[in-house]
Amino acid sequence: MAAYWSRYEGLEEKLDSVRTLIEKKVHIRHTGIKQALVELNSAGGKYLRPAFFFLFEEFGDTPRLDEDKLITAAASLEVLHLATLVHDDIIDDSPLRRGQVTIQSRFGKDVAVYTGDLLFTVFFGLLLESMPGSPYMNVNAKAMKKILVGELDQMSAYYNQAQTVHDYLRAAAGKTAALFKLASREGAYFGGADQEIIRLAGHIGFYIGMAFQMIDDLLDYTEEQSALNKPVLEDIGQGIYNLPLLCALQKNPTAFRPYLDKREDMTEEDVQAVVALMKQEGGLEQARKLAERFTQKAVSAIEQLPNHPAKDLLYNLTKQLLKRSS
Amino acid sequence: MAAYWSRYEGLEEKLDSVRTLIEKKVHIRHTGIKQALVELNSAGGKYLRPAFFFLFEEFGDTPRLDEDKLITAAASLEVLHLATLVHDDIIDDSPLRRGQVTIQSRFGKDVAVYTGDLLFTVFFGLLLESMPGSPYMNVNAKAMKKILVGELDQMSAYYNQAQTVHDYLRAAAGKTAALFKLASREGAYFGGADQEIIRLAGHIGFYIGMAFQMIDDLLDYTEEQSALNKPVLEDIGQGIYNLPLLCALQKNPTAFRPYLDKREDMTEEDVQAVVALMKQEGGLEQARKLAERFTQKAVSAIEQLPNHPAKDLLYNLTKQLLKRSS
Repeated sequence: MAAYWSRYEGLEEKLDSVRTLIEKKVHIRHTGIKQALVELNSAGGKYLRPAFFFLFEEFGDTPRLDEDKLITAAASLEVLHLATLVHDDIIDDSPLRRGQVTIQSRFGKDVAVYTGDLLFTVFFGLLLESMPGSPYMNVNAKAMKKILVGELDQMSAYYNQAQTVHDYLRAAAGKTAALFKLASREGAYFGGADQEIIRLAGHIGFYIGMAFQMIDDLLDYTEEQSALNKPVLEDIGQGIYNLPLLCALQKNPTAFRPYLDKREDMTEEDVQAVVALMKQEGGLEQARKLAERFTQKAVSAIEQLPNHPAKDLLYNLTKQLLKRSS
Repeated sequence: MAAYWSRYEGLEEKLDSVRTLIEKKVHIRHTGIKQALVELNSAGGKYLRPAFFFLFEEFGDTPRLDEDKLITAAASLEVLHLATLVHDDIIDDSPLRRGQVTIQSRFGKDVAVYTGDLLFTVFFGLLLESMPGSPYMNVNAKAMKKILVGELDQMSAYYNQAQTVHDYLRAAAGKTAALFKLASREGAYFGGADQEIIRLAGHIGFYIGMAFQMIDDLLDYTEEQSALNKPVLEDIGQGIYNLPLLCALQKNPTAFRPYLDKREDMTEEDVQAVVALMKQEGGLEQARKLAERFTQKAVSAIEQLPNHPAKDLLYNLTKQLLKRSS
């Protein structure tokens, strides 16, 4: 993490405090699980959500919270993210996360269920510590609900060849963009920014989250597994059709049917054939175009922010994050 | 549910409002899951936690919340309970809950993970609606954490023949008693009772919760599966050693070792032999004695409450609940 943020003066230090606070908060008497949580917390994660929080916090003149509480609020965002990661890994049956063995493959799905739940309580506790009685408690509760409804949306679409790009956008809006949006507007709000900037921050976070999810989907096809640290392609066999596939599927559903109809019985060859077909039908290009459209929306919204060093940081960070697919 | 509470005038109506509110709150667009949640909410559950809330609420003169908010607070307790039930069923691989097919066996573990998570957000939302800014927000967060640490305690003890009755008590204090304690003191607090009664309510709830869990464990051995609506005995094969077994195991560990050492490879005959051995070593009597001790603690604490019709209701309810094992 440290290396990633070293060029953003001041930010690195704040994110370091966030990491230390989270480490303290996941202190439970189950040594193994505690260790796994500490590793998950410190390994490879870029702390993007707290980073967006702090970048937008800069746009206010008078923070509504003292420095400690700001750290605590930023930590709550990362902990909510960690909770969903731990539960996601159960769903995906992932052996690895951030290059580390996942909680579910190390301790079993059972432990992973309660460990994720425990992280939700830590999230809840951090909110109560940082912003008791604030209207942002409700904003957080609603964002958390959106994230989970997004996950359920995605899951109820498993193996559904009739799902559309529109369905995808709705699920992504929940499962990924809602948290970036929350981080951004919460940062602006507690930094003491005015209403218009808070609104803008929410939009920027949302667009970045959407583009981020789309690029993640693109990377499934373009990166080596070693670089991505997660099993690629197996999603298709599990009935999770990501953006490039959905773009191609929507264009030519008949071509995919013989393979996708096999559902969990698809062989590796079937999956490879689906990928080839997806490329042939221009799925990657269409998905990339969509990702670019959302990146462009984010950039345009960033340009509307008042001049501030944090604006340039945000601009560069967004470009860098969303360039991953090229 | 209705029949169970019909002799407690006024309570039945309040619990009905709780049920209706929860039904409204679990409204999500995934028709199947929504239906399953509605059924889980209305099927067979006794609403014990909201009931304790309302019974202790009677001990105050001036409620700290209006009637609607009291219903909302009581609903939060049941929703927290439902969330843990949905996740418990994943862990236990239970096909049935309250005589209904569980969410995990109907929709898969994956859906059950997020459905439970969603219930946590509903819990969170209900708290924010009923008691924003109240110190009981923190009490709730801590209770939720205790429940999950209790579950993790139980899970880290799987197949552990060295675990003691003391370990069992600690896990039960978290996973079951913490929520009864919360319901009782929260009821007393929001009813406007004085400090001493709130403290007493917490103790009563805790003792009842402990006894309740112990009796649940006893019922695993004494009731017919059809009456209990859940698979009996399979816990042993899964490494979950409940109170009667732990009592006997602590007394004569050597006798059990040949069977328990087989862990997940135990046959049905092995399990039957373990049960016979448990009975022979007086596991049931010891467990019953412990349950009676906690029941007695609950009853003694109830006797210290000021005179009030709700005191008699509490007394009868406690006796009735904790008599299930005889």
